[in-house]
Amino acid sequence: MASAELIKKLEETIENIPDFPIPGIQFKDISPIFLDPKLYEDVIADLAANSKGKVDAVCGIESRGYLFGIAIAVALEVPFILIRKAGKLPPPIISESYDLEYGSAIIETREGQIKKGQRILIHDDLLATGGTTEAAAKLVEKQGAVVSQFSFLIGLKGLHGEERLKKFGAEVYHILEY
Amino acid sequence: MASAELIKKLEETIENIPDFPIPGIQFKDISPIFLDPKLYEDVIADLAANSKGKVDAVCGIESRGYLFGIAIAVALEVPFILIRKAGKLPPPIISESYDLEYGSAIIETREGQIKKGQRILIHDDLLATGGTTEAAAKLVEKQGAVVSQFSFLIGLKGLHGEERLKKFGAEVYHILEY
Repeated sequence: MASAELIKKLEETIENIPDFPIPGIQFKDISPIFLDPKLYEDVIADLAANSKGKVDAVCGIESRGYLFGIAIAVALEVPFILIRKAGKLPPPIISESYDLEYGSAIIETREGQIKKGQRILIHDDLLATGGTTEAAAKLVEKQGAVVSQFSFLIGLKGLHGEERLKKFGAEVYHILEY
Repeated sequence: MASAELIKKLEETIENIPDFPIPGIQFKDISPIFLDPKLYEDVIADLAANSKGKVDAVCGIESRGYLFGIAIAVALEVPFILIRKAGKLPPPIISESYDLEYGSAIIETREGQIKKGQRILIHDDLLATGGTTEAAAKLVEKQGAVVSQFSFLIGLKGLHGEERLKKFGAEVYHILEY
């Protein structure tokens, strides 16, 4: 559970942009967090503390999931595994497709980087509908590992992402909720 | 100048994949570096030491430029500015286009994050032809800041990237050269 002070500072720092990328959506721009290395370190300390002793590796989802994910893994002294969009990782790869509003997308990891039986933290900056995160979790399970936690900087209420992830039986943690 | 030990360890860790993404190209897969948090930290220590006292902010190019870039900025205790592909950052933005083999692409930063007069480190994982990096440097100069350094994990010889960046009068640093 993040401190009230950290939550307040993040709420003041994250910018709310109305009608982006489409009318009716309020975009949360997290980029100002990276302008403040002290605040960034406080976010990492909170996310890492929540996973300490509970995971053997961290998977980060391209690309904003890399910004916090790599530092969580380093703080926990565990491997960080890149989950990338299709076509960017060389073979051999393991892939998983998921539906978008129009069409579908594929995410991939390199074969062999996730080990059988590992307890995995899947990290991304934002939980919305949970489509990408669900695909990431399937990718992890396909490789004989266990999703033990999901963590996000922000969870969006009302898009049912958390409910979608329930079937994996893993803890869902986010610092902020909107 | 990186230690011989760090260079050797990186050369053993980075995977060479022949004929990816197209026949005739040997792809350097850096993803195994992130499986080894100690090695990752040694890379960051080297890149940060090279920039210490010389830069006021770090710009990282999406997406692999985020993996080392954010940690360099945190080590130097300076702001980290996201350079993103078109359409991902909300307005107001500053953008710059550059030519690809077929067509063109656009990179963007949010307006106001780079400050006039700042000495900027532009970081990416790999210097190839230098097209994206050159566009990033123009984006920085457009905002009244100065590119004082470029840093990369890997510089590819024979693609003339370093020559392309000469006009900016900034130091070009890379740990490995192939």
